[in-house]
Amino acid sequence: MRIIRSPKIMSEALRRLRSKGKTIGFVPTMGALHEGHLSLIRRARKDTDIVVVSIFVNPRQFGPKEDFRHYPRPMRKDILLCRKERVDFIFHPSGTDIYPAGYRTFITVEGLDKVLCGKSRPGHFRGVATVVAKLFNIVAADIAYFGQKDAQQVIIIQRMVKDLNIPVKIKVMPIVRDKDGLALSSRNTYLSRQERQDALVIPKSLDLARAMIESGIKQADRVASLMRYQIKKNKTAKPDYIAIVDQKDLRPLDGSRIKKGALIALAIRIGNTRLIDNYIVR
Amino acid sequence: MRIIRSPKIMSEALRRLRSKGKTIGFVPTMGALHEGHLSLIRRARKDTDIVVVSIFVNPRQFGPKEDFRHYPRPMRKDILLCRKERVDFIFHPSGTDIYPAGYRTFITVEGLDKVLCGKSRPGHFRGVATVVAKLFNIVAADIAYFGQKDAQQVIIIQRMVKDLNIPVKIKVMPIVRDKDGLALSSRNTYLSRQERQDALVIPKSLDLARAMIESGIKQADRVASLMRYQIKKNKTAKPDYIAIVDQKDLRPLDGSRIKKGALIALAIRIGNTRLIDNYIVR
Repeated sequence: MRIIRSPKIMSEALRRLRSKGKTIGFVPTMGALHEGHLSLIRRARKDTDIVVVSIFVNPRQFGPKEDFRHYPRPMRKDILLCRKERVDFIFHPSGTDIYPAGYRTFITVEGLDKVLCGKSRPGHFRGVATVVAKLFNIVAADIAYFGQKDAQQVIIIQRMVKDLNIPVKIKVMPIVRDKDGLALSSRNTYLSRQERQDALVIPKSLDLARAMIESGIKQADRVASLMRYQIKKNKTAKPDYIAIVDQKDLRPLDGSRIKKGALIALAIRIGNTRLIDNYIVR
Repeated sequence: MRIIRSPKIMSEALRRLRSKGKTIGFVPTMGALHEGHLSLIRRARKDTDIVVVSIFVNPRQFGPKEDFRHYPRPMRKDILLCRKERVDFIFHPSGTDIYPAGYRTFITVEGLDKVLCGKSRPGHFRGVATVVAKLFNIVAADIAYFGQKDAQQVIIIQRMVKDLNIPVKIKVMPIVRDKDGLALSSRNTYLSRQERQDALVIPKSLDLARAMIESGIKQADRVASLMRYQIKKNKTAKPDYIAIVDQKDLRPLDGSRIKKGALIALAIRIGNTRLIDNYIVR
């Protein structure tokens, strides 16, 4: 396994392998790897000849008051995990490798970037789209892997790839949950033992939504308000948003009936930690 | 020579050639080809195995009151010219091939896109950057060729390629002028015989600037105001801007001395036709 910092060296190493007919699988991450990331890496290992994992905590997708500085960076542990999964390359650039002096180019996916998480995190998805496009250009993978947990990110990246004719296939892997149901997230490490207990209201509210829909309660407003009611009963949990939207354009279903493919997404603050989760109606 | 409309078929045809080790030269155009375009095509023909010319009048880089509908589209003549220059592929997509329903991704090169031409053409360079990035992804050329006449476009594209790690080399070719000095432009066909005569004040004002600088008059403000004076003597010519700027960041030199590498750029309206020209100080 090679660890590479320089975008130029990374892209040249991969160009050589590609010219020999090797296929490339790419898992972009911010590190602090958990079983969710590992499920992406394992899938890439199965699908492609060369597996590249990028580890880059992207400053441009954090707001000025967000947790960029405190975001976990357990690099040694991440390296061990990647080695165990037989990753071929870790791409681990510095901030100035990715944004050198004079940097000024940004990608926006208009209309999808200002709702849901984009509403309370202005600029977040612009930062995500921009860095992902850069990484795609550096790595030039055949397939890139993303987790369904970041549902809005996935939708925005799929849209960008299609719109900009980026020659990469996107594979989305299911949310990986802990035994108690909480979706794995690098930010779960922020939670105290009590907060961790309180956070279970998030997957439980999605279970409730599913149960309602399966029992025939399908009016989007009604399902959302029952979820909100359940979450507010827990005094630590503060909803940022609870939304039931069309998966294509993220438009709220409001008074409409929930159909197959609708996205139920929520962001909840547990103390100082903002957690997201979602469920796609089958 | 093949003429291809579909982005998918275009990129697959070129992928096959690339995998056989062929190098690709790319000349993106809006058609209405003149000797300026042909100089780019000839250079590509010299440098690379496969020459691709795109012909696409990009609606997203025209303002609502601009000449998108009337922009010349002499497709048959363009095809003949390309054939004569031994072009391998003309890529000629439709508007919906490039911007299908639901399109919403845009690229901005901030700070460079709102000055000079960007000031009177809001959204223009966003449209240019976006379509050029798309074309680069479809064609995946080794080298792409642009004309120095569109100086700001060149600077913005070079910045975008660097910022987004797009794996293409940009070659910029000198302005091609008619015998009388007027820079070749597809929009010159809009000019009446008298306007064409009046338009010569544009290259003449650049000659004046050069003569001033060579004779030691190097204060940017002073050179610009003499250019403005000369242009205003011609009553048909209405300056949109006359600017002397740093080539890197397009910042005006104002009271500073003009140094090597400074860009003297101007946009002048002759009747209803807006023409641009420029000169880089040696």
